Amino acid sequence: MALIVQKYGGTSVANIERVRNVSNHIKEGREKGNDIVVVISAIAGETDRLINLARSLSSHPTEREMDLLLSSGERISSALVAIRLNEIGCKAIALTGRQSGILTDNIHLKARIMHIDKDRVMRYLKDGYVVVVAGFQGINEKGEVTTLGRGGSDTSAVALAASLNADKCEIYTDVDGIFTADPKIVKYARKIDRISYDEVMEMSSLGAKVMQIRSVELGKKYGVPIEVLSSFTYRPGTLIDDGGKMEEVVVSGVVSDKNQARLTITRVPDRPGIAAQIFERIASKNIVVDMIVQNVSEEGFTDISFTVPKDDADDASKIADEVSREIGGGEVTLNKNVSKVSIVGVGMRSHWGVAARMFRILAEEGINIKMISTSEIKISCIIDEKLTESAVRALHRGFNLDKEELWVR
Amino acid sequence: MALIVQKYGGTSVANIERVRNVSNHIKEGREKGNDIVVVISAIAGETDRLINLARSLSSHPTEREMDLLLSSGERISSALVAIRLNEIGCKAIALTGRQSGILTDNIHLKARIMHIDKDRVMRYLKDGYVVVVAGFQGINEKGEVTTLGRGGSDTSAVALAASLNADKCEIYTDVDGIFTADPKIVKYARKIDRISYDEVMEMSSLGAKVMQIRSVELGKKYGVPIEVLSSFTYRPGTLIDDGGKMEEVVVSGVVSDKNQARLTITRVPDRPGIAAQIFERIASKNIVVDMIVQNVSEEGFTDISFTVPKDDADDASKIADEVSREIGGGEVTLNKNVSKVSIVGVGMRSHWGVAARMFRILAEEGINIKMISTSEIKISCIIDEKLTESAVRALHRGFNLDKEELWVR
Repeated sequence: MALIVQKYGGTSVANIERVRNVSNHIKEGREKGNDIVVVISAIAGETDRLINLARSLSSHPTEREMDLLLSSGERISSALVAIRLNEIGCKAIALTGRQSGILTDNIHLKARIMHIDKDRVMRYLKDGYVVVVAGFQGINEKGEVTTLGRGGSDTSAVALAASLNADKCEIYTDVDGIFTADPKIVKYARKIDRISYDEVMEMSSLGAKVMQIRSVELGKKYGVPIEVLSSFTYRPGTLIDDGGKMEEVVVSGVVSDKNQARLTITRVPDRPGIAAQIFERIASKNIVVDMIVQNVSEEGFTDISFTVPKDDADDASKIADEVSREIGGGEVTLNKNVSKVSIVGVGMRSHWGVAARMFRILAEEGINIKMISTSEIKISCIIDEKLTESAVRALHRGFNLDKEELWVR
Repeated sequence: MALIVQKYGGTSVANIERVRNVSNHIKEGREKGNDIVVVISAIAGETDRLINLARSLSSHPTEREMDLLLSSGERISSALVAIRLNEIGCKAIALTGRQSGILTDNIHLKARIMHIDKDRVMRYLKDGYVVVVAGFQGINEKGEVTTLGRGGSDTSAVALAASLNADKCEIYTDVDGIFTADPKIVKYARKIDRISYDEVMEMSSLGAKVMQIRSVELGKKYGVPIEVLSSFTYRPGTLIDDGGKMEEVVVSGVVSDKNQARLTITRVPDRPGIAAQIFERIASKNIVVDMIVQNVSEEGFTDISFTVPKDDADDASKIADEVSREIGGGEVTLNKNVSKVSIVGVGMRSHWGVAARMFRILAEEGINIKMISTSEIKISCIIDEKLTESAVRALHRGFNLDKEELWVR
């Protein structure tokens, strides 16, 4: 008998038939004797629908009210799942973020979980209930509703699993697990059976929409084994953990991210503290900066380029303009037609020449590299957005990730 | 400078254009120097959509989860209105039932407001905010979300007006006020300028969908002047209060209600306590019984007929079956093809012959009366459902309510 947290994404509850289907699966797990906490996302498309309603009423909707609005989607879907479970004889109770004790900080739309008061959830589990938690939301110390940002239900699930000391956190989605590349782009992409937190984090931050990065961070921090699997097939998925031997390949996967915009501030005076001044200001607006590249200084001036999510590009551009004026910098340019392709793998730590091989593969496809950033286990290149798919396919083939002929170390 | 509570119904916020429109109207009121609390219903059709989702998953959805589900509709619409108000420069904050301090009893789906903790609303008013409250909902002492039943946003509005000691409660809807009959049925129906709480209560309980009856009761109890008016025309509506001289007509209006089903328990032993036994049992399921008629006893047995809302008919029928078996009664029959037509007016208190005149008018239309019930200010008849419209028209004409030739006392 185990305690399992199961998270179902928007496509897993997209319609009545799907709600019936996942409810049956939850019931089966319960009948095996497991204690089950379920975290439910909003019905697929619902969050976007609500965002569009708000945007048609306001260019800058108040964030507090946006949270009230957006949190409704998960309340609806979690209530529906609990209603269905009770109908099929599986005792269940639906809890909002507040009712499940999820306390966050005060940053509306991008709140972080500070603490989980698990007493109520534990009490219901003890009484034999399946506890169905509305994902993506919590309350802050003032009792205001907050949401956790895109993909926040993953964070709700992993945080609950950590807090409840669950045996496993299962993330149900519409694909069979994590793949060596997006199967929509690369026909020969393979499902990965087991992978490390670090690799998934690189993949997530690089735009593979498998899981929200914060949830994987959290899983690593608290050692929560996470399985990503499909609520359409229920086949064994991809297990994310730290232990065991990793697959012995240099490069685990190729990922791309089109949600990138590149900003360049030209002719920035090259003195200490300037970079801090720029990026502190952007961070204060809760905009996440991804890659940062500073060119070699010439005659006391330098260019600084960085990437942000496309949604935040206009805000970031405005801030960059202000800061540039204050520090005596030059023009700010914004390019929204870029994307990022990356290769990820713990294997590359000990392998020379992986970066060179990547650049060679892209060059042979005639793809120009606009920015480069590397870490111990990933290499990312910013390229022209319209070349994304051909870059991913070339890298997947070039690193022998295509099915059946793996590039083994 | 006054404190006004404004309630907007589902059609008043049915789409983006309507939200913009009512937001402008709210802003105008605020700019006149009034303090304004706004209560918002769910977007028209949303509550039904959610109910249908739940019903397609369960024949008897758990009530606690239904409340979680249904309360989402008002959260969405109130957040949208607050977002719009802020956009157009009218400082506003959206509050859920919980956040606006609305505490209810524990009866899910039909909760009653026990107390309003008005401090938070008052604080925001003092700080110059328009306070936008999600209608139809509160929380009980256990912190569970509850809803107030169909039309519950009216109750939220009037209860807030009473608690805040507001100068007026404005109920915005899609008609210009309360009419002498449903203008969709009676072409010559007139708008009533002023009417008493008692008359509106009779009209409401009789099926005129002007306002939820509990909200009018509450208005009467606390002396809250209520105006029913249109958010499409903003023309002067119908003022509901106790003071002033009422329009001096015998009959104020004709109303009909198709949401009626008639149950008859035959051959009930005629001994004391039997009626109590039947109706206590039905009340314990929170089913509202409307008309009750007991025939004259014959040989120690009697027939008892009563009406309930069509939605509750099957449940009520099941209970009636059980009770009938227990008390040695006969068969239970259920007729869902009935409706109720009624005439209402304080004038009829002092006027003989109004009932007789009503029965005569129906007879002349060839309409058979199946049940009769009377009070001081209303007379209701249960008739065949398909004759509803012709009965209403005949009564409106017969009591001289058609425009221009009023039947003055």
